[in-house]
Amino acid sequence: MIIDDNFYLNLAIDEAWKFWGLTYPNPPVGGLVLDRNGKILSISAHKKAGEPHSEVLTIRDAYFSLTGDRDILELSKSEDIHNYLYQNHNTIFEGATIYTTLEPCNHYGKTPPCSLLIKNLKFAQVVIGVADTLGDGVGGGEFLNGYGIQTDFIESQRAKDLIEAFQMWQKDRFIVFKYAQRLNGSIGNGIVSSIDSRKYVHQLRDKIDLMVIGGNSVRVDRPTLDSRLVNGKAPDILIYSKAKEFDRTIPLFSVPNRKVYIEDSLERIQNYNFIMVEGGFGLLDSIADEVDWLMVFVSPQIASTEIFQLQNSKFRIVHQRRVGEDLVIWLKTNDQDIRSVIKLN
Amino acid sequence: MIIDDNFYLNLAIDEAWKFWGLTYPNPPVGGLVLDRNGKILSISAHKKAGEPHSEVLTIRDAYFSLTGDRDILELSKSEDIHNYLYQNHNTIFEGATIYTTLEPCNHYGKTPPCSLLIKNLKFAQVVIGVADTLGDGVGGGEFLNGYGIQTDFIESQRAKDLIEAFQMWQKDRFIVFKYAQRLNGSIGNGIVSSIDSRKYVHQLRDKIDLMVIGGNSVRVDRPTLDSRLVNGKAPDILIYSKAKEFDRTIPLFSVPNRKVYIEDSLERIQNYNFIMVEGGFGLLDSIADEVDWLMVFVSPQIASTEIFQLQNSKFRIVHQRRVGEDLVIWLKTNDQDIRSVIKLN
Repeated sequence: MIIDDNFYLNLAIDEAWKFWGLTYPNPPVGGLVLDRNGKILSISAHKKAGEPHSEVLTIRDAYFSLTGDRDILELSKSEDIHNYLYQNHNTIFEGATIYTTLEPCNHYGKTPPCSLLIKNLKFAQVVIGVADTLGDGVGGGEFLNGYGIQTDFIESQRAKDLIEAFQMWQKDRFIVFKYAQRLNGSIGNGIVSSIDSRKYVHQLRDKIDLMVIGGNSVRVDRPTLDSRLVNGKAPDILIYSKAKEFDRTIPLFSVPNRKVYIEDSLERIQNYNFIMVEGGFGLLDSIADEVDWLMVFVSPQIASTEIFQLQNSKFRIVHQRRVGEDLVIWLKTNDQDIRSVIKLN
Repeated sequence: MIIDDNFYLNLAIDEAWKFWGLTYPNPPVGGLVLDRNGKILSISAHKKAGEPHSEVLTIRDAYFSLTGDRDILELSKSEDIHNYLYQNHNTIFEGATIYTTLEPCNHYGKTPPCSLLIKNLKFAQVVIGVADTLGDGVGGGEFLNGYGIQTDFIESQRAKDLIEAFQMWQKDRFIVFKYAQRLNGSIGNGIVSSIDSRKYVHQLRDKIDLMVIGGNSVRVDRPTLDSRLVNGKAPDILIYSKAKEFDRTIPLFSVPNRKVYIEDSLERIQNYNFIMVEGGFGLLDSIADEVDWLMVFVSPQIASTEIFQLQNSKFRIVHQRRVGEDLVIWLKTNDQDIRSVIKLN
């Protein structure tokens, strides 16, 4: 195996994927720090909007790895970590390299600029997975380069895939169609996914702006569709259905602090930026014009129940990772809309 | 993420999985070298029986990384690499650490002992995924420890999973049931897997002692079942079938240098150590008493063809990795044999 910039960048990308969707409205970003001798000091990722950026966490963890100074781990506010590092870094990052999957931000937003932190701590090199081309924080690479720090843009496809959803929800909106199946495609007949998968889904529900579900699923499954496994917020729900009558004792109607819309149009999605659809392939077929990615939780079971089928549809695996006992696979189509490959029989 | 011994060991384990099955009759083994400052110099794996062990390749690559001396990359015989390193190492590995997924061998077999190489190059530390408990080469860890080299046994479950097949084929035999499906479980109706998956299957066919296939598959698919994509040997074939009459123009019968048995008993498998079954779930059901693991190639497609179904069967994912466009997933059952979970409807 070749141990090059892409090797280290890919470790940071894998770490960032663990928080895919959970950083909304921020992008998922991962980072890695090598000390001046090339030893990995830390691999970290941005976890939640409002919390420190990936670069700040990665440098914080690298500082702890070098110094053993636990006090820095007590700090959760980005500005506090910046200040602590400024006061205590003692030039330990001279000659060090930081990998970041996305170009460091270059402005005072909710947090001070990461570019400034990297410059002030005297990193020798910054390796960037993909340039930041949108928003207020662009220009971090140029800023660092201007201070004589070696700044390399890799333009990694994997780094681009990682932030594709972010780029879409930032500009307009991103819609992911999520479903769970057993290995052989079987669905239904009890809970399919492991508890870790379900927790991740609840974490996503806590973040999204809107969930879309089909009327039939609501009637048959009588779901709650909240985020109770992670004590999160329950998302607003659009039940996409011609029939407007539902049994109001179905639990989802009783969850506090949520809006439930029952509509046979998708116009409402235009008010939202990050939308998750949970449903079957009938629903997928109905709204394929709007769907950007699929996200499939695959449980290592084989059973003989109903199975999703479409006419031959070919996707590209964007990423896969283990979540507890299961696999989760992100899929998109290459160079064409999902609509063009989604066809029910 | 915690950067500890398991982190580095897992990088070596992932590398070794790329050659799972291909090292037969040797175990798959991976390694990683850190220089005295903790920088990763190399990640390599054993690729093929008769070729150098993982430790030798990992140290060779680390030597090249440190010295830029390309001459060592020209050497393919283990003994030559040993000798070259002895003459040229110049104590560059003093203070270095080697991770190896399996305890280094400790005897003169087809190659000189890896334990001796590590000792003579003055590595400071050896981290071992799992102890070698069988065969002639045991005792490498004890040998190294006796020379004052810090020797740590991790007893990693992932390192154990990696060599489970090896332990079984070494003692008796290992049988893997391989099939290919689309994401939703659909099989058939043309080629399912990507070219890279098919090449890996052909590499496996080149290594196995025997392939088992069902009579119906032979009649319907009229397969060749050779290793032409990698110019490998065609495995011997056991067609497991009550009916003994087959159209002898089916290509598999015309492949040179192969034996084809047509039998309605599995007695013959007792003469073999590494067996791959390729077939449908009917065949799996017939021979589940003998099957150790499943190996599933999952293509990122959805289609509506026949789908494998069983009564509820729960597995454990041993490992997954991307092969070209596809995923390959290794599965076993936990603490019970496959028979107990394989039940056709």
